[in-house]
Amino acid sequence: MKEKIFSLIEQGKYADVRKEIVNMNIVDIAQLIEELDRQKLLVVFRILPKEIASGVFSYIPNKLQKYIIESITDEEIKNILDELFFDDTVDFLEEMPSNIVKKVLKNTDEKTRKLINQFLNYPEDSAGSIMTIEFVDLKKEMTVKEALEHIKKTGIDKETINTCYVIDNNRILEGVISIRKLILSEESALVEDIMEKDVVYINTHDDQEKIASIFKKYDFLSMPVVDNERRLVGIVTIDDIVDIIDRENTEDFQKMAAMEPSEEEYLNTNAFVLAKHRITWLLVLMVSASLTGNIIRKFEESLQSVVVLASFIPMLMDTGGNAGSQSSTLIIRGLSLGEITLNDVFKVLWKEIQVGCLVALTLSLANFARIHYLEKIDLLVSLVVTITLFFTVLTAKIVGGILPIIAKRLKVDPAIMASPLITTIVDAITLTLYFSTASRLLGI
Amino acid sequence: MKEKIFSLIEQGKYADVRKEIVNMNIVDIAQLIEELDRQKLLVVFRILPKEIASGVFSYIPNKLQKYIIESITDEEIKNILDELFFDDTVDFLEEMPSNIVKKVLKNTDEKTRKLINQFLNYPEDSAGSIMTIEFVDLKKEMTVKEALEHIKKTGIDKETINTCYVIDNNRILEGVISIRKLILSEESALVEDIMEKDVVYINTHDDQEKIASIFKKYDFLSMPVVDNERRLVGIVTIDDIVDIIDRENTEDFQKMAAMEPSEEEYLNTNAFVLAKHRITWLLVLMVSASLTGNIIRKFEESLQSVVVLASFIPMLMDTGGNAGSQSSTLIIRGLSLGEITLNDVFKVLWKEIQVGCLVALTLSLANFARIHYLEKIDLLVSLVVTITLFFTVLTAKIVGGILPIIAKRLKVDPAIMASPLITTIVDAITLTLYFSTASRLLGI
Repeated sequence: MKEKIFSLIEQGKYADVRKEIVNMNIVDIAQLIEELDRQKLLVVFRILPKEIASGVFSYIPNKLQKYIIESITDEEIKNILDELFFDDTVDFLEEMPSNIVKKVLKNTDEKTRKLINQFLNYPEDSAGSIMTIEFVDLKKEMTVKEALEHIKKTGIDKETINTCYVIDNNRILEGVISIRKLILSEESALVEDIMEKDVVYINTHDDQEKIASIFKKYDFLSMPVVDNERRLVGIVTIDDIVDIIDRENTEDFQKMAAMEPSEEEYLNTNAFVLAKHRITWLLVLMVSASLTGNIIRKFEESLQSVVVLASFIPMLMDTGGNAGSQSSTLIIRGLSLGEITLNDVFKVLWKEIQVGCLVALTLSLANFARIHYLEKIDLLVSLVVTITLFFTVLTAKIVGGILPIIAKRLKVDPAIMASPLITTIVDAITLTLYFSTASRLLGI
Repeated sequence: MKEKIFSLIEQGKYADVRKEIVNMNIVDIAQLIEELDRQKLLVVFRILPKEIASGVFSYIPNKLQKYIIESITDEEIKNILDELFFDDTVDFLEEMPSNIVKKVLKNTDEKTRKLINQFLNYPEDSAGSIMTIEFVDLKKEMTVKEALEHIKKTGIDKETINTCYVIDNNRILEGVISIRKLILSEESALVEDIMEKDVVYINTHDDQEKIASIFKKYDFLSMPVVDNERRLVGIVTIDDIVDIIDRENTEDFQKMAAMEPSEEEYLNTNAFVLAKHRITWLLVLMVSASLTGNIIRKFEESLQSVVVLASFIPMLMDTGGNAGSQSSTLIIRGLSLGEITLNDVFKVLWKEIQVGCLVALTLSLANFARIHYLEKIDLLVSLVVTITLFFTVLTAKIVGGILPIIAKRLKVDPAIMASPLITTIVDAITLTLYFSTASRLLGI
């Protein structure tokens, strides 16, 4: 299919290209267009029927959108904007430099221009910035027949007709009704009698993470967005929510690996930007880890007399770090999915103490057997290592379990209490434990 | 609202409870019921109208489903099963012990029983195990008017009518058409002429991760599932996909923190099970980290003569581990979102070398300034530490960037190449570098 179209393009048979392409899914057309060189891309884009062109436009990367807008006429820009859904228009303008925004706004009427500017001003990641205004609104006095006729007349320009919204004359949200309910009801029934009145809605300023969790809870396909007077101003649809869930997860992964979060795809980001996102945390953690080094320096003499002690430092540090990361990861994830709340701090503490004891005991015994019997390490040194390991693992589990909850309570993102920071904290505790146990037991 | 219902329940005014509750969203009813003690839960559940009861049933936790089935009559079980969507029935049975499954199957007719058994046999996480059979099927010879009448007649029992599926007499999938398209078209138009023929479909054995990525790519609300003869056997809906995305992400988080993945919520899992999921990897990593200790033991004499070297071990190990984890996290995430493919290995390598040099240089200079000028560490020792740090960070970036891709190529889940394993590998490299540089530069 794709090969065939490429070869038609190569031969310049654009009428045939058009015939083939219009039956494809717009996402596939967008992907195909991306692979063309820029000149051919422009030719192919221009032969697309305008409804398809605008659909394709919303699926190509920002830099190609920019290129196309720069290259086409004002007339063509108007055509695309006419067909583009409002939320896609706003999404695209948010990523464009000001000269492109100007060129686009010049081609819209006064009213749309005002609306676009209003939407561009909503806080990033708020309901206002992700909602669309193309929804079906009904009146409660309508009969089902009238409602369906209204949908038939206006539905063509709407992003979805699957859920319709009932508003009064002041645009106050009064109810929702699904297209399914409308179709399955008697034609003479009143919308008021069959609509759902217990409407779950969101405010323009609500954060996208909160919105995503409401969608998940109720399995919604779309949700109404209202302003402070409860006037319906837009809707958010599930396809945007799916993108948000992925983005929020990526952000968590990045924070948990001690990076500044970024929405850019890895391969599209240049080395300087990547380095910038990574360096701050690495520096902070490097300096904190150096402080751990000071603990060793304090015990330099003990170490010199029993230098074999140094060889267990990596194992103790790594095991402590890993044990702590396991706990912190589970708690961070639980907090972000809403399965663990701030009130669960004592439940978590108690659970981590139990798990910690079980895990610590198993690891210590395994370790003692290995180093004393297998590697023939002196009994007292083996004991020092084993006792330290036990308390290291236990402490790591407790610290890893509790710190994310404390962070959340202090309104800090729990995701930063992940592996790297936990490891650094646990390391300091481990080495202090290790050398104090050593000096007591070995009398050094 | 909730308080009011609780107090009505307390007073035993169940007629009033019923009146209040039927206007609520089923998800909220489910949440309310969960908070009741078991006896009252049963009373409230029994007064619910049967369509609501089955909806609520699909939203309560497995142990309450089990309790309800154990406590109600066969007649009541039949009523619930009648209204329950097929995929919810299968989901629930998958989690039940065999005596409950038997009790439920006893209350279904021969045909349903066979179908349920067939669905329970689909591999876990396959399209077959998550699809539902309640979809609208149309024939291409129908007019729009006939199609809408057909939907009106049969739609009430379907999970969704938003997308309808066109099949021939052998149930072979021929096209899809949205309810929107049907409503907005002329009544006399033929389904064949307005349906989409370029249908994206999945096979019963396709894995849920693949399915989720197709949903995301095309922004679908539902997708048809076909068997090997391309016969339509079910559909998958977006609400299930959203759950799957969360589950897959949780699984990645757990694997990346060196745990065996588990779908149980943290607070509902007992300490032994939690410990079991964590212990294997901790043991494996503990033993590998011990091997790192052997490197130190090999250089015991050098260490004894310049014991201050030991105090930089934590900083070197932690920084190397962190630098590697950053890279591996980005690559693992990119692989799982499909932004990075196996063919990008050289692009990743080159990018990580660039980023690695930038980051390594910054960290080394900062470190040299700090230890030599601030902490007055001897010049040669400072140089040893700084040179080691540079190469540690660079190696960590390369190892962290490449190992996840190699894992994927070997058909191993890249997520295990995360922080813990990378840290252990990088530690060994770091210490070898450290002591060989030290023995060369310090002549020990």
